[in-house]
Order: sequence, then C-alpha cells, then structure tokens
Amino acid sequence: MTRQELINQIKEKRSFLCVGLDTDITKIPEHLQEEEDPIFAFNKAIIEATEDLCVAYKPNIAFYESYGVRGWHALQKTWQILPKHCFSIADAKRGDIGNTSKMYAQAFFDRTVSGMSFDSITIAPYMGKDSVTPFLDFEGKWAIVLALTSNEGSKDFQNFTNHEGKQLFEEVIDKVNQWGDTENLMYVVGATRGEAFLEIRKHAPDHFLLVPGVGAQGGSLQEVCKYGMNKDCGLLVNSTRGIIYASSGKDFAERAREEAILLRNEMERELIHHGII
Amino acid sequence: MTRQELINQIKEKRSFLCVGLDTDITKIPEHLQEEEDPIFAFNKAIIEATEDLCVAYKPNIAFYESYGVRGWHALQKTWQILPKHCFSIADAKRGDIGNTSKMYAQAFFDRTVSGMSFDSITIAPYMGKDSVTPFLDFEGKWAIVLALTSNEGSKDFQNFTNHEGKQLFEEVIDKVNQWGDTENLMYVVGATRGEAFLEIRKHAPDHFLLVPGVGAQGGSLQEVCKYGMNKDCGLLVNSTRGIIYASSGKDFAERAREEAILLRNEMERELIHHGII
Repeated sequence: MTRQELINQIKEKRSFLCVGLDTDITKIPEHLQEEEDPIFAFNKAIIEATEDLCVAYKPNIAFYESYGVRGWHALQKTWQILPKHCFSIADAKRGDIGNTSKMYAQAFFDRTVSGMSFDSITIAPYMGKDSVTPFLDFEGKWAIVLALTSNEGSKDFQNFTNHEGKQLFEEVIDKVNQWGDTENLMYVVGATRGEAFLEIRKHAPDHFLLVPGVGAQGGSLQEVCKYGMNKDCGLLVNSTRGIIYASSGKDFAERAREEAILLRNEMERELIHHGII
Repeated sequence: MTRQELINQIKEKRSFLCVGLDTDITKIPEHLQEEEDPIFAFNKAIIEATEDLCVAYKPNIAFYESYGVRGWHALQKTWQILPKHCFSIADAKRGDIGNTSKMYAQAFFDRTVSGMSFDSITIAPYMGKDSVTPFLDFEGKWAIVLALTSNEGSKDFQNFTNHEGKQLFEEVIDKVNQWGDTENLMYVVGATRGEAFLEIRKHAPDHFLLVPGVGAQGGSLQEVCKYGMNKDCGLLVNSTRGIIYASSGKDFAERAREEAILLRNEMERELIHHGII
C-alpha cells in the first residue's frame, strides 16, 4: 500500500486505528478452543467485526511463533484473510546483518517464498544501516523502525544521550531518515507521554508514526494527536487488548466492534478538529 | 547447559567452535534438492560431520523463517537432532515489550508449547530491561545479548557516545550485567577488530562471548584470543560459510569436516597457549 492509499483509507474510514492481533490462545474465548485452529478462528471473527473501522492490522509475530509450526500456520492463514483495504503490519521487530535481514524481508514480504506478503514490518535498529535497508529494497513495502517505545525498559538505552544532548532515539530517526523516505519508512513511537511527540516531530515531521500504548484510556489519544498529528494525519494508533479481549465470552467479536467504534469515533473527532476531514 | 558443562565440553573437545547453520536453500548442493526436506537433509549431514569438533550449533532463524511454515518445520526437525553435548543457540535477535518477549522465550525455550527448547537465544537490547529479562526467567537457559556486532552498520548506533566518552555498547553491557549473571548471560561481540575485546573485557571480564565474523581467515582468531580469552576460555567463535559451504558438491560434508578440523586445531593451539588445557 502506498502512502497516498493509506491517507485515502484514513479519510474514507475517518479512522487511523490499527488493531493489534496479539492472539494468545490462553486468552481467547473458551468456545473457540474446540475449533481446529482456535487462533485463526479468533482472528477471523475479530477482523470481520472491525475491518470497516480500522485502517491497519498488526499481528504480533511472537504470539504465533510461540506455538511453533502450528502458530506459523495460523499466521499465514490470517495474512490470507487480511482485507486488501487495510495496511498490514508484521510486528516482528527483526534486524540482523545485511544478508540475514534480506531473509527476514523475504519471510514477511515475498509470498512466493514464504507464503506471506505484509505491507510492512517493524524493525529493531541496533545493528545499523545494513540491518534496515534490505527491507527498503522491496518495492511498495515499508520498514517501521523502533524509535521511542512505550515500555518500561525504553529509557534504558533509547534515552542514552551524547555530548550535544542528543538522545539515541533522535539519532536513530536522523540516521534512518537518510536510508529511505516518507514513502517507505515509519517509526514506532509509544504513546506514554504525548509531549514526546513534539521532539519526534522535529526529526520526522512528515513520516507516519505507529503508536502503541493507547488503550481504552481516552485521554492520551487526544495528547498524541495534539502533539503528533500532521497534515496527512501521520499517525497509526494501535489498540490491542482493549479491543480483542473486550470480552472473553461468546460476544467477544461484538464487544470488540463496540470498543473499536468508540475509538474510531474519538479518532474521527480528532481528524475533524485538525482539519484533515 | 550450564556454564560448567560448557567449559567441560570445551576442554574435552579442545575446541570452542560454534557452527552456524544459516542454511540457504539456494546454496546447498544440487543433489540434496531432491530430498523431501533439503534444508533438514543438509543440516543433518553437516551436524554428523562436525559434532565431535564443535561445542555449539547456531541456526540463524531468518533462514528458516524465510520459507514460512515449511522452514519452521525444518528448524524444528533440526533442533531435534542437535546433539545434547553441544550448546544450542537460536540466533533470532528477538526483543519486545515484556509480555511479548515472554512469548518469544516460549517459542525457543519451551518445547511443550513450541516443540523446541534451545539452550540460548540472541537478543537485541534496544527496548531495554523488560525485553531481556523474560528470557532469563527460564531455568538453565541463556540470553546472548547483542553488544558490538561485526557488520558494517554496527558503528551507526553501537558507537554512539555519551558525555563521559562511554559508548552505547558499553552501556548495554553494564546495564544488562545487572539483570543476570555469568551463568545465564553472554554477549555478541564481532571479531572485526581483535583489540575491541580489550574494551569489552573491561565491562565483562568473566562472561562468555559469542564471536561471529571469524571465517576461514586465520589471523583474526589469534587476535580474538589474545584480547578476548579469559581463564575459562570465555569464547564461542562462530564460523558459518567457511564450513557449511566449503563445497557445493557431493563432498560438502567431508569438506565441512576438513574446514572444521582446521579451525579446531587452531583453537586447540590457542587453548594450550593460554593454559586452559
């Protein structure tokens, strides 16, 4: 999916919601456990219940990988039913030396080899340029590079500061910016502190940002938009647990839809407020 | 495998060789392409030809993942035939927020869920403490954290330096040291400059180091040992292409064995020279 197509989807659906498919077999409703492939059955129901409300889906690869071959099978089947009008993100946080990153790129981008072709993949930048650029060699695909994450440990290294007061996450954005452009690069920026987006936008004013850490909790979405939204929206805000685990009963898909509607409505207000729609 | 068991293996085999199983279907001998599972057939032959010469095997997960479900199946079968007297390393370079890293740990450590249980996994440290510690919660398992890698891009961020002149890779070692100990933590340190080990050993004098970047080229092994070896050896030196792709003919396994013998002999000399055996 191109940048323009993504922007069009956002305007059309009046939403910049990304639904995280972190499907944990121990958390999905009991009645699905009897299905041949409970993970896939769960994902299918969630996708059918939310696809008109979100612009992206983000399976977290760890949740599939943890079940070995069977998990990869569920992932592949899930990829097959992701709607073409939604941007697909393999949340894999991969990164290795050049020839190995090329293999990872093949795993998530080249369906003729791996059976899957996501629009994008999340990347850990620690190993530098040759670990990132192989993902950018795929026409029409995106690398979403970790910049400032939302977890407790993010401050351990991402805030490491040089003698000029520049922090590692800023250095990451500045350097990675040179390897691609706003048509094939995004950054992961956590929503824990809305004001952090001011800093991020100094380094990446035009890039799309993938924002985890916004849940059912409303307030922070407003903060994220206040400081992080740009003229093209420039945000994909992810919600996982608040949506997919809204209920553990037979009504899980309906409840997921209800939660997605609440978030979508809030996003619509922000898009209007910022003059995007 | 415990640290003491690993040291015993090194002394017994007079070797600290790790054989990388970066098995690329486009590079394995033509006559194997007719096998039902060429990747597995290749690995089996390489393992049988080298298991008395090396103390560790390191499948690079990207090479399996790139073939999707079929690749994971080959990986799982390969794990099953890894000899118990060899330390097994899932070279996966994973790392995510706490609950997700736990899933990755399950994928590579918990055979009851994923079908595999490696001794160790390589970890990218960018996301900090909660991305690393879930791997340390598994009794008897190891996290091998990227510190200073051997690729061209390693200098992009790993040498990022704070106002005291401390580089990111040093900060990584100092911080990660606090989360585990020499019984469950190792570091990846590339062999490109032997003298870099002087710096590394200031921060991690006792830890084992996993060293990629030593190939058929002899000189650098001596340098790595000169600056990096400690009283317990403290090194696992990896060779991949120089061994597994020594020949692309029917003699690939014999030739792999010959190359492994050359490296093992050189390692034996170093172990004697440093008074370890």
